[in-house]
Amino acid sequence: MELLQQRILSDGKVLPGGILKVDGFLNHQIDPALLYEMAKELQRLYAGEQINKVLTIEASGIAIATMVGYVLGCPLVFAKKSKTKNISNNVYSVEVESFTHGNTNTVVVSREYIKPGDRVLIVDDFLATGAALVGLKALVEQAGATVVGAGIAIEKVFQGGGDLLRQQGLRIESLARIAAMSDDSLTFC
Amino acid sequence: MELLQQRILSDGKVLPGGILKVDGFLNHQIDPALLYEMAKELQRLYAGEQINKVLTIEASGIAIATMVGYVLGCPLVFAKKSKTKNISNNVYSVEVESFTHGNTNTVVVSREYIKPGDRVLIVDDFLATGAALVGLKALVEQAGATVVGAGIAIEKVFQGGGDLLRQQGLRIESLARIAAMSDDSLTFC
Repeated sequence: MELLQQRILSDGKVLPGGILKVDGFLNHQIDPALLYEMAKELQRLYAGEQINKVLTIEASGIAIATMVGYVLGCPLVFAKKSKTKNISNNVYSVEVESFTHGNTNTVVVSREYIKPGDRVLIVDDFLATGAALVGLKALVEQAGATVVGAGIAIEKVFQGGGDLLRQQGLRIESLARIAAMSDDSLTFC
Repeated sequence: MELLQQRILSDGKVLPGGILKVDGFLNHQIDPALLYEMAKELQRLYAGEQINKVLTIEASGIAIATMVGYVLGCPLVFAKKSKTKNISNNVYSVEVESFTHGNTNTVVVSREYIKPGDRVLIVDDFLATGAALVGLKALVEQAGATVVGAGIAIEKVFQGGGDLLRQQGLRIESLARIAAMSDDSLTFC
């Protein structure tokens, strides 16, 4: 998506260790007009798929998921990082490793909000190793619902998570796909 | 706001200990069409105030803040709960007590994203003791920016935080104001 690529080039910063800093418009300060255009593009890509629920993970996925839910006309659910290891019977839960924070979180979603028959679009700001996406997909499958696909803002293709999941049959649409990053430049696919 | 009050009555649940559960439409599963109407109402209430930034706190404030930013045509910033006590020089920081979780968080916002001259609307899903709002207001003041006011989805008036802050001169617009809650009923102001 040209608009997002241009914004990454103008406002993004590449930091050592494979970190792309986009917190000026995507995940600390957020440009909702850009999110709206991104949501419209995901709507176009997933037209006809009868999505009735958007699923993301707190915290930085919530903004884009809100706009995707608004454009698709359906509710969104955000999976929560649990503070406790004592998981109640009222939730589906999964372990998710965080690339950015270098730790593992137990992530939960209430059984009330994903049901068999739901057609779920998973939305997130980043796709790198794919750990969050694998976890969210597992939550949907625990519920007996269908993962229609994933809508991602920025995919770091060189980290391999996206292609591995595509090989397993998951549809993933990423609005900007980064092939390579060096110290202060990046290349899109 | 009638629409929100009706939704609280139909889908909210009162739990022991002064907890109002609205996670079916506001802070776990979220209805973006409802958020849009809430954002339009805040736009009406704050018309002419030349707000150029929306500030909230992760995680459950992000959804409504996204929609308010979209409707007002300005960016939103969400303050982050810091994982570390070592706060860098690049952020403003403040301590915020959580009523829901019974703990204290260090909350930070990058100095890049709140500047002197900014006219900030603070947005959150709940106002109870006012601790989050006091913290967010302090962050804006550290930056030398102006707090235009606060836009809150649900105020638990009986917990007193809102009225205390109003007495100190802060403008607060709450879209649903709960006067009292008992075991399984609630009364709006």
